[in-house]
Amino acid sequence: MGVGQAAPAASSSDAYGHADPMIGTSGDGHTFPGATVPFGMIQLSPDTRTRHFKESYDWAAGYRHDDRSIAGFSHTHFSGSGHSDLGDVMLMPIAGDVHLRPGEVDDEGRKVGEGYRSGFRHDTETAEPGYYAVTLDDYGVRAELTANRRVGLHRYTFPAGRPAHVLLDLRHSIYDYEGKVLWSRVRIRPDGTVTGMRETRGWAPGRQLYFAMRFSAPPSAHRLENRETPEYKGFATPAARDPAARAQIEGRDLAAVFDFADRGDEPLLVKVAISTVSEDGAVGNLDADMPGWDFDATRAAARTAWSEALGAVEIDASEAMKTNLYTALYHTMQAPSLAMDADGRYRGPDNAVHRADGFEFHSTFSLWDTYRALHPLLTLVQPEEQNADFVNSLIAAREHSPYGILPVWSFHGLETWCMIGYHAVPVVADAIMKGIDGIDAGRALEAMTASAEYAPYGGLGDYMKLGWVAIDREPEAASKTLEYAFDDWTISRVARRLGEDAIAARYEQRAQNYRNVFDTATGFARAKNSDGSFREPFDPDKAGYGSDYTEGNAWQYSYYMPQDVAGLIGLMGGDRKLVDRLDAIFDAEVDPESFAHVEDISGLIGNYAHGNEPSHHMAYLYVYAGQPWRTQERLKQIVQSQYHPGPEGLVGNDDLGQMSAWLVFTALGFYPVAPGSNEYVIGRPFVERAVLNLPNGRRFAIETENLDEANTYVGAVTLDGEPLARSVLTHAQIMAGGTLRFRMQAEPNTEWGRAPEARPFSMSTYPAR
Amino acid sequence: MGVGQAAPAASSSDAYGHADPMIGTSGDGHTFPGATVPFGMIQLSPDTRTRHFKESYDWAAGYRHDDRSIAGFSHTHFSGSGHSDLGDVMLMPIAGDVHLRPGEVDDEGRKVGEGYRSGFRHDTETAEPGYYAVTLDDYGVRAELTANRRVGLHRYTFPAGRPAHVLLDLRHSIYDYEGKVLWSRVRIRPDGTVTGMRETRGWAPGRQLYFAMRFSAPPSAHRLENRETPEYKGFATPAARDPAARAQIEGRDLAAVFDFADRGDEPLLVKVAISTVSEDGAVGNLDADMPGWDFDATRAAARTAWSEALGAVEIDASEAMKTNLYTALYHTMQAPSLAMDADGRYRGPDNAVHRADGFEFHSTFSLWDTYRALHPLLTLVQPEEQNADFVNSLIAAREHSPYGILPVWSFHGLETWCMIGYHAVPVVADAIMKGIDGIDAGRALEAMTASAEYAPYGGLGDYMKLGWVAIDREPEAASKTLEYAFDDWTISRVARRLGEDAIAARYEQRAQNYRNVFDTATGFARAKNSDGSFREPFDPDKAGYGSDYTEGNAWQYSYYMPQDVAGLIGLMGGDRKLVDRLDAIFDAEVDPESFAHVEDISGLIGNYAHGNEPSHHMAYLYVYAGQPWRTQERLKQIVQSQYHPGPEGLVGNDDLGQMSAWLVFTALGFYPVAPGSNEYVIGRPFVERAVLNLPNGRRFAIETENLDEANTYVGAVTLDGEPLARSVLTHAQIMAGGTLRFRMQAEPNTEWGRAPEARPFSMSTYPAR
Repeated sequence: MGVGQAAPAASSSDAYGHADPMIGTSGDGHTFPGATVPFGMIQLSPDTRTRHFKESYDWAAGYRHDDRSIAGFSHTHFSGSGHSDLGDVMLMPIAGDVHLRPGEVDDEGRKVGEGYRSGFRHDTETAEPGYYAVTLDDYGVRAELTANRRVGLHRYTFPAGRPAHVLLDLRHSIYDYEGKVLWSRVRIRPDGTVTGMRETRGWAPGRQLYFAMRFSAPPSAHRLENRETPEYKGFATPAARDPAARAQIEGRDLAAVFDFADRGDEPLLVKVAISTVSEDGAVGNLDADMPGWDFDATRAAARTAWSEALGAVEIDASEAMKTNLYTALYHTMQAPSLAMDADGRYRGPDNAVHRADGFEFHSTFSLWDTYRALHPLLTLVQPEEQNADFVNSLIAAREHSPYGILPVWSFHGLETWCMIGYHAVPVVADAIMKGIDGIDAGRALEAMTASAEYAPYGGLGDYMKLGWVAIDREPEAASKTLEYAFDDWTISRVARRLGEDAIAARYEQRAQNYRNVFDTATGFARAKNSDGSFREPFDPDKAGYGSDYTEGNAWQYSYYMPQDVAGLIGLMGGDRKLVDRLDAIFDAEVDPESFAHVEDISGLIGNYAHGNEPSHHMAYLYVYAGQPWRTQERLKQIVQSQYHPGPEGLVGNDDLGQMSAWLVFTALGFYPVAPGSNEYVIGRPFVERAVLNLPNGRRFAIETENLDEANTYVGAVTLDGEPLARSVLTHAQIMAGGTLRFRMQAEPNTEWGRAPEARPFSMSTYPAR
Repeated sequence: MGVGQAAPAASSSDAYGHADPMIGTSGDGHTFPGATVPFGMIQLSPDTRTRHFKESYDWAAGYRHDDRSIAGFSHTHFSGSGHSDLGDVMLMPIAGDVHLRPGEVDDEGRKVGEGYRSGFRHDTETAEPGYYAVTLDDYGVRAELTANRRVGLHRYTFPAGRPAHVLLDLRHSIYDYEGKVLWSRVRIRPDGTVTGMRETRGWAPGRQLYFAMRFSAPPSAHRLENRETPEYKGFATPAARDPAARAQIEGRDLAAVFDFADRGDEPLLVKVAISTVSEDGAVGNLDADMPGWDFDATRAAARTAWSEALGAVEIDASEAMKTNLYTALYHTMQAPSLAMDADGRYRGPDNAVHRADGFEFHSTFSLWDTYRALHPLLTLVQPEEQNADFVNSLIAAREHSPYGILPVWSFHGLETWCMIGYHAVPVVADAIMKGIDGIDAGRALEAMTASAEYAPYGGLGDYMKLGWVAIDREPEAASKTLEYAFDDWTISRVARRLGEDAIAARYEQRAQNYRNVFDTATGFARAKNSDGSFREPFDPDKAGYGSDYTEGNAWQYSYYMPQDVAGLIGLMGGDRKLVDRLDAIFDAEVDPESFAHVEDISGLIGNYAHGNEPSHHMAYLYVYAGQPWRTQERLKQIVQSQYHPGPEGLVGNDDLGQMSAWLVFTALGFYPVAPGSNEYVIGRPFVERAVLNLPNGRRFAIETENLDEANTYVGAVTLDGEPLARSVLTHAQIMAGGTLRFRMQAEPNTEWGRAPEARPFSMSTYPAR
């Protein structure tokens, strides 16, 4: 059977076994080790430190592998974000005395003094996709976590003979600070279901998160505690003097303690559903998604879901690379995550409740990161319906938006306005250009142009009037101009496809705006004032929030015009100039401390910062200059230095899967430098063999001859036996199924890909495409 | 045509013209002068001072007649409450420079320094039911207000030639303090509708109030301002640097300014709908309830609604008394107010959204006050449907309650736990005993017993176990025991009616619990410890929060067992003892300053405090001792000293109509001492003639012969020409229609009503009733 035909899914326990959620939980990865299913609403994971604002960046995922104590298990986390939030509805099983505060930690994250947190050792931890377990040493409690899409399931085995308790801390929050919890509520319903909500003023303002919780055995008693020193004395609730008799409390610093009779060896199960809509919505999710109490079956279902999802790519590579890749693939399926109740209701960016019609609403769009490689990857490894859900969620959110524009960085349906650009646009455009079914292209185009023409957003008024974002009126103007121009080009692509030629022409012209900020004298893209002068003084090494660039400097940002690299080469004065400049970037001697003030710039190779997104396309730019072998060298340099299978194995924030998606593409031998182009630029593979089980049922194989440390270069590349004429693979070629075969060698092949017509798409060379 | 038959409604412009919303806006009345319709969701009224906590009590209705400046016009107010809240969605029309804060006032309420507030003079004010107008002297703006049930309508006439603005202050609140606004939001929708919400931590915790606002002419510009000094810097919204381009803001200290082109003489109209459910709910209310822009028609409709409502009683009396009475009647129709959207959705005490099925949800139940006379009065002057809506709202709220009990003091659907007792019970019981249609008596009885048996509430556990609330475990135990016993008796009445004899017997026994706290040695009801001893030391003059009594002392509280005054007389040792004690109360020499620490005790005649509810039945107790003429004397004393037709004309908080309902009943010549008994105790009339246009279409007339200052006493009283045998009028007698005729005289008739069998109902004398 040829690889191009449909085949029964291969056994994917191999894939499952190589995905290690612990990778990225130290260093700058910011991933979490807990239990979730692909794109699930619940990410149930231990939190080690979150209480202090100063601990925000390094503890963005709640857990750090370096810490020695756990505060509890909360139900929402970001996977690899730089900024953070969440940590909602934290539970802690306790055997013995109950403290109402987690207590403090020392520099190593060890518990200091009194508190409910507990020490733990890594050798008691298990972290698998969909399952996490740890022993809480202070209590002798074995805690296991699993989840399905809308419900987290806890299994606590308490030591016999000690009083067992479960504490709920509604104040606990990731990126916590005084005043973050605006309001919260806990209520014990007559049937024993515990429901509640909290509203926070975090990354997203006024975020309401509701929950519903049930225990497998009824508590023998409970206490609802408001720990806030009252600022305002309301009238006494019925049980003001008796926390044990309270049926509901409200306030800003709530905790609840549930006591359980000695259970012997019988574990206690707790299931928790969340909702962005209402308490009743959370109850509905609990009823619909997990009516029963079978921990092992839930865990097995999560394992099956992950095995199937990871099975989209079959990999034959070194053990380390397999682990890196399956873990990467695991990390690409954390977000955009489900943000809709079982009844179809969800909260939109207007903070109002809506009902989804014909799609599943997802949120947690880290778009500045994920438009680059994550979303393009998901079009290859996830069903069309799933990709359509992402796009339809973006379009729906735009229609609910008070500003009438697509999301920028949203989660739980709400907008955070984080980072720059309107990069929902290339995500939508890429999906339409790839022919993903179930998207209304007309609505999509309207959403894209509305977003690109909303003058108050990020200097767009000037951009539309002048052709560039003016640095005297808007910070980070160089980066914004470049990224807007790319996004604009993707709009032009969709408009052409839909026959909207006037729109297409307008956006093709906007796509050339990168030229307006490129300073041919210095060879850098630079921030321009509204009067047309470049901002002075200019220092290409300088990076900083609010500077000319976004999380980067002139070296890192100047060569981002993936829609027209040929145009860039023209501006620079030829291929050689670009190659020299790329070499200057990679080979620079840079003191990492010079970037210490910008959290996200990490993973440095010279001025190349693999730990942050603006660099992600750079190694592939040599291909556009007709020198694919230089790309091949750089990829080897990056892959070998920037990923390895340990907790500190990610050099930068995984950014909801973008760092991981880069690795998956790169290891397969190609990368989507310009989403929306339907082209992937050929790099070099890092696998012996891989097979993509495509959403259309076909299979696309990558095979590598002579993969060896010494063989850095691609000698030849064939598709289904025919030499690949260009240094490009098209989306159609992949979706047709087939075999891409690389032959590696020790010496560069300096001929293949050299001719201008062999190079990847650029507007300047393929104007009519 | 006899008065007993149905008749066309009399012209009631006379009624309308005598209702003066300004009465009670000074002194302790706490009423507001603004625009509302009967039981409307909107109470749109000027606020003069609210900014400071210390100004809370006297400014409970937002406006005080004594002040000389107005901060703005807000859409929600309580009528006559002691504690307070509300003042939602305040607008201020401004001509000229715009300040974002109201500014300060001096001791007379005059504006001091800069701010948006404006001076005003009373001679520019008009206050009529459903209409309020004032000239804002600082701006030369004429502001007029009217309303229908869910929408407030403003008409602002700006001086020609000056820039016109409307300011929305979402921070403004009655009973305001730092941190009260938990979160708020303003959004300008593409069609120009302004929507938003605010969530407050006031009297009701976590109260969400949404609004939708439209202008009759589009603003030329707007600014959305967050005045809070940022504690947390979120990422920039699209228009972070430009308040004029913002489409939405969120925060805790929001204001919006809308600019309008010079309108010449053309007034600007603003309409505002509110909702407890959602912004979309408020938009729906605006669309459904006020699609158009006709201020005069809205005002006329409000006038018609009030004329019809006030026309339920036709009054012939002195001008002053007519003004007092129609104003009182006006004040009895402010609450319980509508708290449901046009689509039937409302928020319940669980803070969740529900949908009403077959009734209109109302809230603002000041039950400790209103169960006494307000609700009984409404059964005579409002349609059965309206009374059934009140009761069904209580029952629905109980079914949503996290505690499973009836409301205690609720507004906007939420519980405040203010005051004592479970006085929704007598409201429900009174309605059922009167045969009000549309109430499920079974559900009602279940709600009543659930409320009376919820042990954690207010010492009920002890009460059920011991027979009294134990002062060593629960404050104000004497008052609680007495009021619980009365409420219990009303449950027994309903249970008997439904044939639930076991429940009836249990509650008849509980109704005797007043005996457990009555100290026959001192002749006072006193607080008892759990060991059965009375708490010592005992000082019958002492009053104070958390003492043995609730807003009262032993004199004021000891004789509250309206279900069994004959039993009380037995405990005291005869009629004479009760009469002597009542005289001692009324004739005591009391320094009002001795009550200065308890805000609500006012309107003193000796120890009798007409300004607060525990005294309201006391003048009628002489009738139970067989001495109606003594009641007649006391009523004259009270009516003449406690009500008069001026802003300071109410001696105590009107308490959502209870003070007013007392006057209406008393002036008609009878009073519902024991709601649920279906009996009204005969006092003496203060009208020449009155006709009740009853909800069943019949008419009941009160006629008074020889009404004169000298004729204090009732010589004879007849019903349809027959002498009234007892000093009691039954509900059935009223509802049958007919004429009650009093003949007044200068000398007491010491024979009528003397015989034990002529006296009002008491459990001890009419056990089988």
